[in-house]
Amino acid sequence: QSQLQSTGGESGGVRALHVTAPRTATLSFYFMWKMIFFLTIKFLDIWDVDVLKRPQEINKQGHHTHLYSSDFLIVRRTLEFQIKITFDRPYKPAEDKFAVEFVIGPSPQYSKGTYIPVFPSEERQSVWRGRIVETSDNVVTMGITTSPECIVGKYMIYIGVVTPYGIRRTRRDPSTDIYILFNPWSPADPVFLDDEEEREECVMNELGIIYHGAYDDVSERAWNYGQFEFGVLDACLFIMDKADMPLSNRGDVIKVTRVASAMLNSRDDDGVLVGNWSGDYTYGVPPTSWTGSVEILLDYAGSRGTPVCYAQCWVYAAVFNTFLRCLGIPGRVVTNFFSAHDNDGNLKMDIILDENGKLDRNRTKDSIWNYHCWNECFMARSDLPPGFGGWQVVDATPQETSDGMFRCGPASVAAVKHGQICYPFDAPFVFAEVNSDVIFYRRQKDGTLEVVKVNPTHVGRMVLTKAVLHDGRRDITDQYKFPEGSPEERRVLEKAEEFGCQREKASLPQSDVEVEIPTLDVRVGDNFDVTLQFKNHSDQRRTADVYVTGTVVYYTGVPSAEVVFKTPKVKLDPLQNKDEKVLVRGEDYMHKLVEQANIHFITTGKIKETGQIITAMKVITIHNPKLIVKVTGSPRVSEEMYVSVEFTNPFKFNLENVHLRMEGPGIMPFKRTSITWTETFSPRRAGSTKLIASLDCAALRQVYGETELTIQQ
Amino acid sequence: QSQLQSTGGESGGVRALHVTAPRTATLSFYFMWKMIFFLTIKFLDIWDVDVLKRPQEINKQGHHTHLYSSDFLIVRRTLEFQIKITFDRPYKPAEDKFAVEFVIGPSPQYSKGTYIPVFPSEERQSVWRGRIVETSDNVVTMGITTSPECIVGKYMIYIGVVTPYGIRRTRRDPSTDIYILFNPWSPADPVFLDDEEEREECVMNELGIIYHGAYDDVSERAWNYGQFEFGVLDACLFIMDKADMPLSNRGDVIKVTRVASAMLNSRDDDGVLVGNWSGDYTYGVPPTSWTGSVEILLDYAGSRGTPVCYAQCWVYAAVFNTFLRCLGIPGRVVTNFFSAHDNDGNLKMDIILDENGKLDRNRTKDSIWNYHCWNECFMARSDLPPGFGGWQVVDATPQETSDGMFRCGPASVAAVKHGQICYPFDAPFVFAEVNSDVIFYRRQKDGTLEVVKVNPTHVGRMVLTKAVLHDGRRDITDQYKFPEGSPEERRVLEKAEEFGCQREKASLPQSDVEVEIPTLDVRVGDNFDVTLQFKNHSDQRRTADVYVTGTVVYYTGVPSAEVVFKTPKVKLDPLQNKDEKVLVRGEDYMHKLVEQANIHFITTGKIKETGQIITAMKVITIHNPKLIVKVTGSPRVSEEMYVSVEFTNPFKFNLENVHLRMEGPGIMPFKRTSITWTETFSPRRAGSTKLIASLDCAALRQVYGETELTIQQ
Repeated sequence: QSQLQSTGGESGGVRALHVTAPRTATLSFYFMWKMIFFLTIKFLDIWDVDVLKRPQEINKQGHHTHLYSSDFLIVRRTLEFQIKITFDRPYKPAEDKFAVEFVIGPSPQYSKGTYIPVFPSEERQSVWRGRIVETSDNVVTMGITTSPECIVGKYMIYIGVVTPYGIRRTRRDPSTDIYILFNPWSPADPVFLDDEEEREECVMNELGIIYHGAYDDVSERAWNYGQFEFGVLDACLFIMDKADMPLSNRGDVIKVTRVASAMLNSRDDDGVLVGNWSGDYTYGVPPTSWTGSVEILLDYAGSRGTPVCYAQCWVYAAVFNTFLRCLGIPGRVVTNFFSAHDNDGNLKMDIILDENGKLDRNRTKDSIWNYHCWNECFMARSDLPPGFGGWQVVDATPQETSDGMFRCGPASVAAVKHGQICYPFDAPFVFAEVNSDVIFYRRQKDGTLEVVKVNPTHVGRMVLTKAVLHDGRRDITDQYKFPEGSPEERRVLEKAEEFGCQREKASLPQSDVEVEIPTLDVRVGDNFDVTLQFKNHSDQRRTADVYVTGTVVYYTGVPSAEVVFKTPKVKLDPLQNKDEKVLVRGEDYMHKLVEQANIHFITTGKIKETGQIITAMKVITIHNPKLIVKVTGSPRVSEEMYVSVEFTNPFKFNLENVHLRMEGPGIMPFKRTSITWTETFSPRRAGSTKLIASLDCAALRQVYGETELTIQQ
Repeated sequence: QSQLQSTGGESGGVRALHVTAPRTATLSFYFMWKMIFFLTIKFLDIWDVDVLKRPQEINKQGHHTHLYSSDFLIVRRTLEFQIKITFDRPYKPAEDKFAVEFVIGPSPQYSKGTYIPVFPSEERQSVWRGRIVETSDNVVTMGITTSPECIVGKYMIYIGVVTPYGIRRTRRDPSTDIYILFNPWSPADPVFLDDEEEREECVMNELGIIYHGAYDDVSERAWNYGQFEFGVLDACLFIMDKADMPLSNRGDVIKVTRVASAMLNSRDDDGVLVGNWSGDYTYGVPPTSWTGSVEILLDYAGSRGTPVCYAQCWVYAAVFNTFLRCLGIPGRVVTNFFSAHDNDGNLKMDIILDENGKLDRNRTKDSIWNYHCWNECFMARSDLPPGFGGWQVVDATPQETSDGMFRCGPASVAAVKHGQICYPFDAPFVFAEVNSDVIFYRRQKDGTLEVVKVNPTHVGRMVLTKAVLHDGRRDITDQYKFPEGSPEERRVLEKAEEFGCQREKASLPQSDVEVEIPTLDVRVGDNFDVTLQFKNHSDQRRTADVYVTGTVVYYTGVPSAEVVFKTPKVKLDPLQNKDEKVLVRGEDYMHKLVEQANIHFITTGKIKETGQIITAMKVITIHNPKLIVKVTGSPRVSEEMYVSVEFTNPFKFNLENVHLRMEGPGIMPFKRTSITWTETFSPRRAGSTKLIASLDCAALRQVYGETELTIQQ
């Protein structure tokens, strides 16, 4: 594997060298000419360069890159790696001058960080350090330490021998190309995360859990991030190429994550994923059907940048998470329950009632998502004052308006928590997503609106992410908000107002009648009762004219079809508590359900005696049946195993055009089929992992199953 | 001009009303039905609505909108304006309930600020205040005061009469539409500028001067902003429509200016102007040929958003300035001499020399513009901590990279001055434009670069804008930077470094030999000498191997053609000062000149005795002949006048395809012709104004002339 072209035999003392200057052809000819002229002078000659990338070799230790399925050396910034250079004779430090040259991109420049020579001698050092680790015969082992800001990407290596007549360079050898990644294990790297368990979870874990549903009835889906799968690293780097991101910015984690938040969606820039919330997914994969990121990223890169159809928020967040972990940026997917959107720094979500307290659907814009998933990534924020580093929100989902462009973040979670939303990027937007008030207006005959109720606790009800190194939930609401009602919370909201967030200031009399809707556990197809719990706190009789509406909604809050509308009249004795039940029948909602199967109940009413308005809201999640995934066979690397996926149709009608998808990180690439399905597979890697399956048909989406298994070596 | 359709005669007691609900057809039918049913009941009926928009009427006073050439009422936020409503009988405050309704956009909503009813009674008020100014017979004069955050744009007016059966609304009458603008005269408005002279200049002045050339040889061009010309206001509002900017954001000056900075250039979004720095303007108007903004804006709006060809930085800034002033945002064009660009927060501009101190053109990227124009706009910054309001930088010129998108600002000038670049938007970018160091590197044989000189004073050498209310220059460098070498300056640079700006830290020995190039005044075609002034500060002899390169450059610093290259050897006695002259002949540069006619001289050299590198840079502006503009005739409104434009070809060759353009605000719309030109025109408006002419041909660009004149009433 010689790096040099030899025109003579190995016995020939003089070797004609092919010398390549990475920059210009003219330069190359110049050197060629010099070479021919000075051929009789014997300088150091290179026979072989070995980047020590085999599994048991030194460079795979410590860099935490052993899981990448790749033919190349992959290392992390600031940690030394070694290469072995074989010369044609023993290396003489006093006489022989050489440099290992790292080159990235088409026009290498030292001052842009795209051309870095590394020298073996103490006296002469560039921005990357070099040292001789070992010399034996003709072989020199050199240690190379990259700088903590260096560009993340794929570098070419040349060995340049310095002669008085210029540099003689080895020919390009693709097999010695190396990838340099962010290094969360290094205190010098801005992505340093000083917690081994968190690093294991947020950089090394290929499997994740994404939460959805309702804050009081949380559902979860498993996801194969697959950041180490073959081709994924190249796909992630391709995303930056496709964004025309200057190479010199690619060492800056702030810029990398900001560009990625724009590029993960296809809006503006032909990014990775096309959003679709319409319910019609004829020309692509329904968002609920994906079980992992690998297929999406490989499709995108394989087509040289044709956006992949279709995504909704968790798909954006999951693929973004793969991007982050793959490049070495600690990343996690979080879910915010009742997420305000499309409000651009305004902390008011409006619900319009008519004079009688009945919901005015035409005038109430959908502006609260049942849940919304985004990403957090961990980094120092050198562009901000101290205290705003750590977890940062980035969001690739193209929401309706966000400063005219479809990207969001990085926004410091600490800045959001403390109302310091004057710092970039997009902190006011994130602040509104977790802190908006829900304002109920009564619309007067003359068209003006009167505030009748303010609910400050509905939005941002809970923020969840997967627990570290086990499958439980982790409630991180307290990282975004101080406790409801605390003095700190009030101060933060005041702070945010100073920075232009508008809040509703009306001080409203407390109503003496309350209504609530408790949580329900409903399986798809069931009949169920929605209970309205009334409490009369006054010592007088109260009469309420109540409206109850149940509407099937997309998770974005967009209403689809009304399934129930009732107008009970409720009479309450002094201090009486009373339940009013509203029956919802399976046949009423079954044919109206959209993919995420939520029914949104809004109760409003007017108290006759006082004119006060009472309201309650509840999202009831209709639970789908699960897939049962079973594995048989001997769980050993490279041995064949069987997996079966079982599904029982709970309905009285047939399901048509049913599609199943399945994948397991390190054991099985994604597959798809139609109904009743047994697959064989041979695990590629030892360790504990999962098989994840999804079922999809137009009448029933969001059907998932998974099984855990441990593969032996 | 009745707002109501009458089916009976005026004598008929009962009138059939056409009632329009602005929102939905269903609603309208509902009201229609109600109306027919209750026709026998006599409610208040409206005969006429007058928005008092004639020049001598009340609304033209105080709103500073008398100069707009428009058929509509134009008022500014927060200042009361009046409308006269004629009813069918005297108005009885106790019984009759009506509201003046303002509606903007296709889906009016009270909570979005796109539907605002204004009531005449003290007790009932919405976000806009209303009052009865006068009642006489059937006529009510109502005063209306808009809120300081209200949407800037064109509203429709309806009068709604409240009845127990709903609102009866007048029919749409386009002649009562009104424009509401920002109000820099009102302390309540975020664009309040508390200086009458500055407001006169930065809001009301239609004429401007834009500086260019070199900091020590400043040229200027007159510009007709034309913000009051017919159609310009609609064109400016159209730009926000074309950007799909939500109406609810259009009262927020921060968002309006940010959107405009993206929309004034055609990149990303089919904005107003296409940039072209190539020298080939075959398919459009050469940037140097424009004399005003009006033609550009009317072309853009007239074509419903086809980008206009071509612009360079001052064209972007000038048209942006029209946009700002037209909407009532105080705005001015500023010029930064030696403006760094394409460095994305890095404060280093690299110049690469070879081993001998000779400039390496291939490795030196163009990164300093001879000058760059941007805009400042004046506003409160409620999104930032106190202290960062006032003038803000916005820049519509699409520079090479700016966080992946072609827009910039608003960035607080105060934040830039104090190094507080952690605040949005794009402050690090602007900071680098005025504060970058020029670093001279010597490139070693092994490819690495050694810093040999740092010039911290070259970039951001001077920032100029037009003086207030007269034609002089105003140096505002001190608003961007503390004095060179002051302790404050050092502290600011340290502050900026804390926020991630990278500077060169090498501490270099002071060279004991200096070289300078003094300024020259050169007319196009002249032969001239460039003087290199050497100073030997040492008490020993010094020998310098000097390289002098003169290159014709675009104002962006992009080199076009080398016109001179000399390598004098200079010998200096101890403490000697010595001049070395380099002759540049007209014939050497005439055929190589590009539009802005700058020759960029770089002198570098190596001192033999010490190995030190000396450098000097100078941009020499080649001055073009001027156009002579002469006006004859009686300068009175509507009387015919003559203007002649004279030009003498200073060259020995013929000029071909010569185009002249001319315009004068308020007196003559833009015109164009080919050579020797007399035009007649009739001034439209009294007052002091200018006629501006430009001449353009491929061999000679940037030829301007102007004349001042005062038109009598």
